[in-house]
Amino acid sequence: MTHVKIEAPRMGEPWLLTPGPLSTSFAVKEAMLRDWGSWDTDFRAMTAEVRARLVAMLGPGGASYECVPMQGSGSYCVESMLGTLIPRDGKALVLANGAYGLRAARSLAVMGRAFRVLDKGDYLPPRGAEVAAILDADPAVTHVVAIHCETSSGILNPLAEIAEATAAAGRRLLIDSMSAFGAVPVPPSEIAFDALVSSSNKCIEGVPGFGFMLCRREVLEAAAGNAHSLSLDAHAQWAEMEGSGQWRYTPPTHVVAAFLQALREHEAEGGVAARGARYAANRDRLVRGMRELGFETLLADAWLSPIIATFFCPADPAFAFPDFYDRLKARGFVLYPGKLTVVESFRIGTIGRLDGSVIDAVLSAIGETLADMGVVSAAPPQSALDERARFLEEVKA
Amino acid sequence: MTHVKIEAPRMGEPWLLTPGPLSTSFAVKEAMLRDWGSWDTDFRAMTAEVRARLVAMLGPGGASYECVPMQGSGSYCVESMLGTLIPRDGKALVLANGAYGLRAARSLAVMGRAFRVLDKGDYLPPRGAEVAAILDADPAVTHVVAIHCETSSGILNPLAEIAEATAAAGRRLLIDSMSAFGAVPVPPSEIAFDALVSSSNKCIEGVPGFGFMLCRREVLEAAAGNAHSLSLDAHAQWAEMEGSGQWRYTPPTHVVAAFLQALREHEAEGGVAARGARYAANRDRLVRGMRELGFETLLADAWLSPIIATFFCPADPAFAFPDFYDRLKARGFVLYPGKLTVVESFRIGTIGRLDGSVIDAVLSAIGETLADMGVVSAAPPQSALDERARFLEEVKA
Repeated sequence: MTHVKIEAPRMGEPWLLTPGPLSTSFAVKEAMLRDWGSWDTDFRAMTAEVRARLVAMLGPGGASYECVPMQGSGSYCVESMLGTLIPRDGKALVLANGAYGLRAARSLAVMGRAFRVLDKGDYLPPRGAEVAAILDADPAVTHVVAIHCETSSGILNPLAEIAEATAAAGRRLLIDSMSAFGAVPVPPSEIAFDALVSSSNKCIEGVPGFGFMLCRREVLEAAAGNAHSLSLDAHAQWAEMEGSGQWRYTPPTHVVAAFLQALREHEAEGGVAARGARYAANRDRLVRGMRELGFETLLADAWLSPIIATFFCPADPAFAFPDFYDRLKARGFVLYPGKLTVVESFRIGTIGRLDGSVIDAVLSAIGETLADMGVVSAAPPQSALDERARFLEEVKA
Repeated sequence: MTHVKIEAPRMGEPWLLTPGPLSTSFAVKEAMLRDWGSWDTDFRAMTAEVRARLVAMLGPGGASYECVPMQGSGSYCVESMLGTLIPRDGKALVLANGAYGLRAARSLAVMGRAFRVLDKGDYLPPRGAEVAAILDADPAVTHVVAIHCETSSGILNPLAEIAEATAAAGRRLLIDSMSAFGAVPVPPSEIAFDALVSSSNKCIEGVPGFGFMLCRREVLEAAAGNAHSLSLDAHAQWAEMEGSGQWRYTPPTHVVAAFLQALREHEAEGGVAARGARYAANRDRLVRGMRELGFETLLADAWLSPIIATFFCPADPAFAFPDFYDRLKARGFVLYPGKLTVVESFRIGTIGRLDGSVIDAVLSAIGETLADMGVVSAAPPQSALDERARFLEEVKA
């Protein structure tokens, strides 16, 4: 692992401890200081390099995959993957434990594809045995849709056992690896999947504006004419890039330039292993420090992703998240609100251009902010501890 | 009109004489040098300002319109407008005279909406009388889809007569004003339309990454649940922005920041009138200079948009466009290939951070390049002149 020099935001903006957009290096943003013609050979070469680097990032078994960048947000890429790869007479099983799984299901509903949902609620993980049982009972299901890291709670879902159950049943796996790819390995040699999607502004540390799909070549070749949308047709985008080297429609040229710089920095840092190790170290330091302050995590340690962690709001009546947020922002740190439906929570991201020194600084700021607010104890209410007991019960089972 | 200071590209890149992405001001690109949290109030305020400025840009009659920004390229916004606003049991009449009209029709075909096309070929304008006749003969048509400036040829289509024919028949007009809005006025008080779309990297001189729809409020309110795609559902995007002030899915934060700077520069220049006047002056200077060099335009003067112009390739055997393109790029100017199917042509854009001095410089470079290539005459072949005669015949009729 190469040591990465982390530099404070030069324009005076706060650190972003969020699931993306995130704090990026200044060099990534500086790459946007020039204009490119999207038709020109210089830009086509940049597109080709981006695609090749992303395929290489898959690691062992990646050579049979193609990279298809797609304009828009990560959710556009999820919709593009589902619409392009699930046949019109196919049926999806969506594994949901938070907002992103439910959004994938809503995409399918809008485009009129058949699907069923295994909805585990706010944060409980979908298990391999559950997937196996549903696939066994429902032979119409052709595709399983899994969320790799569900940032609603910050859980790293058990992808290996889901992939195994899917492959054992002879079905195909589509992965939303939005917030994990680039920091959490997904080697095709070990995890069988047809396609995954991720975006420019997550673990590769670019700025937002497009995403990409990594898809088995033969699967993509068979998907012509299947999409429900012209713009989001990943097969057509791929065919154009293979032919002319261009994006079908105007690409976000500056964002692509920033992403190429981000990919080079990702490699210089040491690739997926090093990036994942830095994020995991950020998380370990954060969780340890937050616990020392009296906070509690929603999840047990083994399920905490290196991406983002959910903490319960303190029961202390002096605590209110909006005030806490504003005070921390004034100290230079932007946190993220919680997404649990049952108890009050907030989230802190550990991805982006952050290291231990930033984590230490945010921990100090949080401690001082609690004191400023007159929060005596950061301990959560009993209802939160009951939620966590539910989690522990589930993952033990 | 305020005089605009045009500065040469600071990073040494060529001038882009293309229909976008285009040469933008350095201040626009500098606005991308910081990171924003998309959930944060600072960014929500930027989104609100962008939306308000775009509605104001409509001018007289604009107060009953809403602005809906949408992640992705301009074609995404066209598809979003068509899918959100044309009812599932509606029928569109698409007025096509180039690639963008045909693309709108293809969008409709993929999403399974009924449509018919008036296809005028490469460049002939769809006329009001033709629209009136079709609408009279086909009562099933609910919506007319028009391309404002068709950059395939550079023609400025006769929007006023199309709007008049559409309104007279009691039908609704949807406009792809991608490359015209911000430089060519579309006042709702004079031109009746339900919605138009444009993008960040055209006449407002931002960088690419998103577009926007301007839509009559009551039309948008009636469009809930109509879209074929979750990501491209403009009603849902609007509802979220009205509620939380946020984009539904991750916005291209840096591109939005650049666009806000571009909107401020647009206002400082003098708004739509001044921007349009600068572009028209660019075009006039370019066309005059190119004719002095012996080139011929495809279109008669009255139909030349201030956006981009098509020139016939010289018949001289020493001329080859790829060589011409590379030599001009080496001299610091990126042109654009032609899109006519019948004769060889190329295009030169006149939008972006360009003024007369840049046009003079590109004209000098073209003259020198022809000499370097040994091109004796820039006159087009007879087939090109026959094409133009066809155009003149049509527009006289």
